[in-house]
Amino acid sequence: MNRPWILDYDSANCAIGAAVTVIGERPTFLVLREAFNGVRRFDDLQRRTGLPRQVLSDRLARLVREDLLRKVPYQDSGQRRRHEYRLTSKGLDLYPVLVALMHWGDRHAVGPAGPQVLLRHRDCAAPVHLQLTCQAGHTLESAREVTPIPGPGARKIA
Amino acid sequence: MNRPWILDYDSANCAIGAAVTVIGERPTFLVLREAFNGVRRFDDLQRRTGLPRQVLSDRLARLVREDLLRKVPYQDSGQRRRHEYRLTSKGLDLYPVLVALMHWGDRHAVGPAGPQVLLRHRDCAAPVHLQLTCQAGHTLESAREVTPIPGPGARKIA
Repeated sequence: MNRPWILDYDSANCAIGAAVTVIGERPTFLVLREAFNGVRRFDDLQRRTGLPRQVLSDRLARLVREDLLRKVPYQDSGQRRRHEYRLTSKGLDLYPVLVALMHWGDRHAVGPAGPQVLLRHRDCAAPVHLQLTCQAGHTLESAREVTPIPGPGARKIA
Repeated sequence: MNRPWILDYDSANCAIGAAVTVIGERPTFLVLREAFNGVRRFDDLQRRTGLPRQVLSDRLARLVREDLLRKVPYQDSGQRRRHEYRLTSKGLDLYPVLVALMHWGDRHAVGPAGPQVLLRHRDCAAPVHLQLTCQAGHTLESAREVTPIPGPGARKIA
């Protein structure tokens, strides 16, 4: 695999990190952020997330157990065999969560320097964003245009 | 305001709750989930989230301090004046995060009964979803079609 460009950059003040500092617990989001950044190896993950090794090790084990990451063996020449961590399809499905956190962080939680990461469409290089749409083809601008209704799993309180 | 229909339903096994049980800390997400559900009053929030009162109180204070929620006074007849909690515009901007968590939870973390909540377009009643799109108008199907590039806030490691 190609070495991700992001390994050459400082991870402080990242939009996603800033967002979940406000709204939730950080370690798992940080690990997933790096997985989506293409960072796969323990030492790189440790450096990028700044997590203590034992915390990172526990989070990775849990993410593997939950089938969000899978361990894939690799062996650099002259080194012993190690494992790297790759997103499963269940993990890849979390991408909108990370993108949404990132966009929110970009807007509300990062400093004046602006976003550290921009997302581009692989095929045409245009900026990527998340859009709320409905199946009739309308574009929705805010939560106020959405009506939540009970689904099949909703249960009335007896 | 109208009483939200969801107050009549059980909040166990909610998709968002299930998702963040896997990927992060739950209390803040639970409070935000309820805010987007239209639940505004302390006792309702306490019942819906199942959080201990002191934990809920601390989370609400933090969300107010972070300008995600604002306190609005109300007074029921014969009762003392109280406050309810409403999303600010900064809080409303978190909606895609919650929708993304919910869709992921619906797909990967809820049981066979299916989603508890479905989202519908207020104006046409069609199902709502989040779509990755690019400014050139293409629809993206997965993270694999997105290329992250360094943004203005990216800093090289010296």
